[in-house]
Amino acid sequence: MRFLVGHLEGRQAVYLVRGDKAVDVSARFPGVGVDLSALLKSPDLMAAIREASDLYASVDVAAITPALPVERPGTIICLGLNYTDHIKEGGYDIPDYPALFMRGRQSVMAAGQPMVRPTCSERLDYEAELMVIIGKGGRHISEADALDHVFGYTVFNDGSVRDYQRKTHQWTPGKNFDQTGAIGPVVVTPEELPEGAAGLKIESRVGSEILQSSNTGNMIWSVAQTIATISEYTTLEPGDFIAMGTPPGVGHAKKPDPRWLRPGEVVDVEIERIGICSSPIVDEADLHKVAAE
Amino acid sequence: MRFLVGHLEGRQAVYLVRGDKAVDVSARFPGVGVDLSALLKSPDLMAAIREASDLYASVDVAAITPALPVERPGTIICLGLNYTDHIKEGGYDIPDYPALFMRGRQSVMAAGQPMVRPTCSERLDYEAELMVIIGKGGRHISEADALDHVFGYTVFNDGSVRDYQRKTHQWTPGKNFDQTGAIGPVVVTPEELPEGAAGLKIESRVGSEILQSSNTGNMIWSVAQTIATISEYTTLEPGDFIAMGTPPGVGHAKKPDPRWLRPGEVVDVEIERIGICSSPIVDEADLHKVAAE
Repeated sequence: MRFLVGHLEGRQAVYLVRGDKAVDVSARFPGVGVDLSALLKSPDLMAAIREASDLYASVDVAAITPALPVERPGTIICLGLNYTDHIKEGGYDIPDYPALFMRGRQSVMAAGQPMVRPTCSERLDYEAELMVIIGKGGRHISEADALDHVFGYTVFNDGSVRDYQRKTHQWTPGKNFDQTGAIGPVVVTPEELPEGAAGLKIESRVGSEILQSSNTGNMIWSVAQTIATISEYTTLEPGDFIAMGTPPGVGHAKKPDPRWLRPGEVVDVEIERIGICSSPIVDEADLHKVAAE
Repeated sequence: MRFLVGHLEGRQAVYLVRGDKAVDVSARFPGVGVDLSALLKSPDLMAAIREASDLYASVDVAAITPALPVERPGTIICLGLNYTDHIKEGGYDIPDYPALFMRGRQSVMAAGQPMVRPTCSERLDYEAELMVIIGKGGRHISEADALDHVFGYTVFNDGSVRDYQRKTHQWTPGKNFDQTGAIGPVVVTPEELPEGAAGLKIESRVGSEILQSSNTGNMIWSVAQTIATISEYTTLEPGDFIAMGTPPGVGHAKKPDPRWLRPGEVVDVEIERIGICSSPIVDEADLHKVAAE
């Protein structure tokens, strides 16, 4: 199933997407609520939606303004280096354990919302990534069982402010500027995709300019391995997000000059069979103007 | 004022501490709720408590089992290297920007609760730290205004699993093992302490063995500077926590041999005029036995 959380006529709901049409499942199943929080924890609700014969997709998907799939994301854990060629372009050695960092709630927003270039830096960069949304929580999850813990997959643009990312060896500041990480819009459940969402084309673009183009099959750590690795140290909970790292082609490594995102541009991240996450780049100084319009 | 969130006879409440006695302010002021979440955002409630003349501290503090000061902490941001001598003992250069990392909700627990040594590592280490709890949120907070955003100060033991901390250059895994970061028990409001909680003795001990002994005046980045630095990239919110880094003497740097925490020991972190955060070390394999007793 393909879920879209979003607003239509001032009301937020969970929609089931079929082609370019969608049906409001929040209205049909009151237990669903207005984001995926309840569905993440309820196989019964999921089964009821899957089996419902009276769901007629009549709303235009294009009319729905995407919201975050989970209004209050749990922990957001990100892999820093998960495609061999991207590791080389960043000047890092290929490690035997994933580089893991965290993003806070303030740093992420829904697809379609402005990606904010901060006043203090012009070095805003894109990173096309597969994002995993955890359904069933757990600790010490084996690689064999790991995919049972995935609720679904979506698209992530791990917007990064490169000079702040490298202020010290810890990447936190550059990965946590407000409104730089775009999530969504569509969340696709695992049965619609290859195992572990591997083998899918992944791209980032500005207009017709292709910035990154790779395949999720090129990831060093699979989704299953990553869940096993993370759950060795922490309990994963429903609504936690895992960003799977980005392929080569990021802006700071472009030759001869870096290719930073500029206000006025729209950056698209697309993953085959999942969807496109579009983010208009807005200068922090212009953000309130945009909000007021 | 000195606040203690805790359980007594099966009920959680916010207590105001006076010496070794406390008074249940949740009972007297229903708007307070059972943790500090409401007080963080309500100067009016704080004023009402401050001015109340009918608060008689009659409960023994020792009878209260501490809980987390904020049940659902916001973002937990930690400074990695903030005392010159500790930076040298870890083999790092003195930086011109703080090394910042994040801890997730699963990694922290209240003072008095078991600090869990995981099955996969014997390298569990202590770190005595001052912890700041944000009251008023904000972005782009100036150093001059920063202390207005502090609700209070408490004690933190930034328990770290060193081999996992250094699996890669990103410290996340070693800083995020479940139940390794102890917070509390008492939260002291700023007017009780020197400006920015500077100039306070800070120690960690196991029994009579002094492991770390320093002073919060030795921090490279003050609380005000740290709030200004963090809020340059992210919006701080009420209930966010900032851990201010640890002084020299951590176990992994002890000579001739590292000094890891062992199950059965109790590690105490004390900050002058704030309090003592005690954590019994429990092996992960024995955790469920402890819970069942």
